[in-house]
Amino acid sequence: MGWGTSKTGRPRVPLRHGEGDRDHLTSFGGLAALSLDALSSVAYGPEAIVLVLVAAGSSALRLTLPITIAITGLLTVLVVSYCQVIAVHPDGGGAYAVGKKDLGATVSLLAAASLVVDYVLTVAVSLAAGAASLASAFPSLAPHLLAMCLTGLVLITAVNLWGIAESARALMLPMVLFLIAIFGVIAVGLVRSHPAALVGTAQPIHISEALGVVLILKAFAAGCSALTGIEAIANGVPTFREPRARRAQRTELMLGALLGAMLVGLSVLIRREHVEPRGGVTVLAQLTAGSFGTGWAYYASNIAVTLVLALAANTSFGGLPVLMSLLSKDNRLPHLFGLRSERPVHRYGVVALALLAAGLLVAVDAVTDRLIPLYAIGVFIGFTISQTGLVRHWYTQRPPRWLPRAALNGTGAVLTAIAALVFVASKFAEGAWVVVLTVPALMLLFARIESYYRAVGLELELGRLPERPLAARSLVIVPVNSISRLTEHALHAALSLSDDVVAVSVHPDPEQGADFRAQWEQWNPGVRLESLESPHRSLVHPIVGYVERAQQGDRQIAVLIPEVQPRHWRYRILQNQRGLLLATVLRASTDAVICTIPYRLTSR
Amino acid sequence: MGWGTSKTGRPRVPLRHGEGDRDHLTSFGGLAALSLDALSSVAYGPEAIVLVLVAAGSSALRLTLPITIAITGLLTVLVVSYCQVIAVHPDGGGAYAVGKKDLGATVSLLAAASLVVDYVLTVAVSLAAGAASLASAFPSLAPHLLAMCLTGLVLITAVNLWGIAESARALMLPMVLFLIAIFGVIAVGLVRSHPAALVGTAQPIHISEALGVVLILKAFAAGCSALTGIEAIANGVPTFREPRARRAQRTELMLGALLGAMLVGLSVLIRREHVEPRGGVTVLAQLTAGSFGTGWAYYASNIAVTLVLALAANTSFGGLPVLMSLLSKDNRLPHLFGLRSERPVHRYGVVALALLAAGLLVAVDAVTDRLIPLYAIGVFIGFTISQTGLVRHWYTQRPPRWLPRAALNGTGAVLTAIAALVFVASKFAEGAWVVVLTVPALMLLFARIESYYRAVGLELELGRLPERPLAARSLVIVPVNSISRLTEHALHAALSLSDDVVAVSVHPDPEQGADFRAQWEQWNPGVRLESLESPHRSLVHPIVGYVERAQQGDRQIAVLIPEVQPRHWRYRILQNQRGLLLATVLRASTDAVICTIPYRLTSR
Repeated sequence: MGWGTSKTGRPRVPLRHGEGDRDHLTSFGGLAALSLDALSSVAYGPEAIVLVLVAAGSSALRLTLPITIAITGLLTVLVVSYCQVIAVHPDGGGAYAVGKKDLGATVSLLAAASLVVDYVLTVAVSLAAGAASLASAFPSLAPHLLAMCLTGLVLITAVNLWGIAESARALMLPMVLFLIAIFGVIAVGLVRSHPAALVGTAQPIHISEALGVVLILKAFAAGCSALTGIEAIANGVPTFREPRARRAQRTELMLGALLGAMLVGLSVLIRREHVEPRGGVTVLAQLTAGSFGTGWAYYASNIAVTLVLALAANTSFGGLPVLMSLLSKDNRLPHLFGLRSERPVHRYGVVALALLAAGLLVAVDAVTDRLIPLYAIGVFIGFTISQTGLVRHWYTQRPPRWLPRAALNGTGAVLTAIAALVFVASKFAEGAWVVVLTVPALMLLFARIESYYRAVGLELELGRLPERPLAARSLVIVPVNSISRLTEHALHAALSLSDDVVAVSVHPDPEQGADFRAQWEQWNPGVRLESLESPHRSLVHPIVGYVERAQQGDRQIAVLIPEVQPRHWRYRILQNQRGLLLATVLRASTDAVICTIPYRLTSR
Repeated sequence: MGWGTSKTGRPRVPLRHGEGDRDHLTSFGGLAALSLDALSSVAYGPEAIVLVLVAAGSSALRLTLPITIAITGLLTVLVVSYCQVIAVHPDGGGAYAVGKKDLGATVSLLAAASLVVDYVLTVAVSLAAGAASLASAFPSLAPHLLAMCLTGLVLITAVNLWGIAESARALMLPMVLFLIAIFGVIAVGLVRSHPAALVGTAQPIHISEALGVVLILKAFAAGCSALTGIEAIANGVPTFREPRARRAQRTELMLGALLGAMLVGLSVLIRREHVEPRGGVTVLAQLTAGSFGTGWAYYASNIAVTLVLALAANTSFGGLPVLMSLLSKDNRLPHLFGLRSERPVHRYGVVALALLAAGLLVAVDAVTDRLIPLYAIGVFIGFTISQTGLVRHWYTQRPPRWLPRAALNGTGAVLTAIAALVFVASKFAEGAWVVVLTVPALMLLFARIESYYRAVGLELELGRLPERPLAARSLVIVPVNSISRLTEHALHAALSLSDDVVAVSVHPDPEQGADFRAQWEQWNPGVRLESLESPHRSLVHPIVGYVERAQQGDRQIAVLIPEVQPRHWRYRILQNQRGLLLATVLRASTDAVICTIPYRLTSR
């Protein structure tokens, strides 16, 4: 983890007081740290358009360019809109934060749910596209796409659990290589009179749909997957050097220009070279082979694309766990997800993201194209919420020139809302229904968790001053089964905590009990012994019964259980199981304080 | 669970004081309760011989009968030997108990390891053979043998975890049906002049081995899988009615007679009807069809065989968990396996057995024939140990007529030892190597666990009287993060346990700390508050640091963590994770007493 922020508007590394400005992002550094997700989407966006259009025959593919130009138009509106978001929210603030502040609880739940869906999809889509890109270069990998994705996922998860720092500088090199590769493909392709090489295997085209408005809308929706991630810069403003807003705006404009140029350039090439889907290779790989041939440049380009896609998947690991911790702080997810242990890593969130992405990849067998119908819906919901929040902001604040600004953001909001509806309508049967079901289900889950925590807060009278606590008499019960240094250790602690201590032992028959009592009296530890009989050899139940009987009255009962702590973790399974069982049953069935005291072994 | 004892020599239901003799086993009841494992092995024993011999061509199958007669001879020696075991060890005592008493630690470890292997194999072989038997009757099940085995395993495991009582009487009916079916097959088959029906599909015979001594020894070894389980009666003597030893001996002789008669009868039929292995059906099913045709009697017979095999698998669930608890009592397995909670079930042992058997079934894809080479080695090691122990017993005790008795047991020991060696040598490459590796590995594991517990016992000075425990001053630390009824509840308990209580709160910045302090002073609970600052929002580390600093000096530190207990278990994940994390880290890094106090919610 390290640099990078994400859709939640939280810098991924908390900036500490007194940290120098030198550690903050320049405009170009911001591009590397915050835009890999957006830039890398050229690896699957144009392909997604081609795969939709080809259903109406290869002649329909000529529509790739006009559709891409329409998408670039939407990109322009979004980029300008986000420059305004940056000016208004210089502290960052993704759709969830903006929604919560300006648009109320339900909208913020919608934002949160769509963000969760989208983070998971970003991981899955980026890994699937990365695997496809690598398999384009090395065809022998083609049958193992799912295995490659899961391996990559395990690696990224491990890196994020360890919390290895990555810097914007380290991300710069892959980004530059990636940009050189893509623009190189475009430039050489435009100059060459005919393709340098053809890769992959020809595939028969089955014409299954007529070329009409529905298909064009579907292709547009699929291509909009190329716009995911452009909101990340606006969320990450606090990580920029001063003047922050200006630098972030500059980065946003750079991203828009680069992404738009790449999309249009690749579409022109697709048209010029009459690219059709071929088996075993991506559309981008076909274009690369067409420009560079199949020599070292082909391999280098594909590897650069794979690397940037993997890093794009990695950005979600910076984003979702932070979002989950914000949600848990708002009582909308288990507080578990807000925990950070020794390293500043939300490990439950990281593991949750990895499991969800793995499930998704297995479900679609790592085929990018099956994920595209699910993707971008969530992003466009987020776009709409951000823009709407800004319209509301202009309307209530009314700064100078608020009306044209509100009009711009309003246009953006309407366009992205229409885009979201087009996605759902045109791709419902192909997978969008999953998102249509999941988003409300998540909203309901968040709301139910929130109402649980509210009810608990009421019952605990959080925020009201309770009665003053009073001291009561206490009795400490120490279960014993032998006389040893462990027993002495436990009784020492018990005597320190109460004047009234009783040792309790359980025996299968009276003779054994009498033997033990004799030993006890010989030791004479100054603590009385209660012997319980248990003909069925259960140890737990006689003790639980004893605690329940002792609980009558107002005194505070504590049960003190000594625990042997071996030095090596591998010996743990050999110890303390009985105490653990006893503690679990006592916790479930009595109101006693359960105390455990460690006894550290030195030999093992 | 209920009746039945097993190779460990422990009755499966502990007999309570004052229990009437009526609840004990008659000779015939003992057959149902203790012999299903042995009797059911006719379902796979003769088939195992046929499958080995057929490798030398169908003419080699005529050797089935002489090999079966040799096995029956060994059966006779074993039965007579075990009648002596019953007389000498009327308290039961499987190979592990006998080995420990008479032959020392190493031999008892060998016995334990081979018993563990065998219990697991009994479950796997019985389930695999049961599935094959059911699939013989219903060919549509044939592709799903593994699924059938695992389903059966889950059912048996569930029954054993619930601890549903089974009685000898309930086992009587399936046993009688089974005996009627098998003897019916034999009787009708001997009377008919030609087979009533042919089932299954013909399979080509690939001659891959020459008929020689090695193949005959292999077939003998495979057929000895039919002798597994005959030691169970000797282990279960205490469950018989008085006169126990006499009744048990009578049962042992009945078992020997029935098993011998079934084995020889089935072999005669195999020869008479020129049975060869056929696809989709077991050898026993072929004989059944040959005698009864393929009408209702065929289905009824196969179902009876399946049922008895499932019950045979179930007997291991009575045996292995008890053996594991004996081992854990001898410090040779984690004490975990000695635990019994509410029900008298060793649930860890039951689960361990289920997992091991499932792993084995998956590894061999539920094919009985692949398990046979592993099976019976363990049993014959156990036979050898029991006999050798008895020889030693005769030699040291020297009762009247000890010499012929010792000679008999000595013959048994030598024969079974030779058989065990023949198994290992003839089937090493086909799977016996697994047992050859597993048995010493288990012995090593037991020995290492034993030496761990011994070292711990030394360090804890078990058996010596330690110093008398002295009371010390105490300090109870209560981590707080809000003021609520939960806080009051925790402070009440803390004040009851010590005069010196301190509340500790952690804040990300000083302002928040000052706010909380003001609230605290307004409440004025009579407990001082320490505010710790944690700019990195870690809650655990500041508290651990505070506890470590407080620990200087000789006073006893306790940390009291309140836990919210929701009424419904589904809400558990929403609570207490922070406390759990704190407790875990404190337990690992400080010597403080860790106390938890439940606060039971009434609303959720």
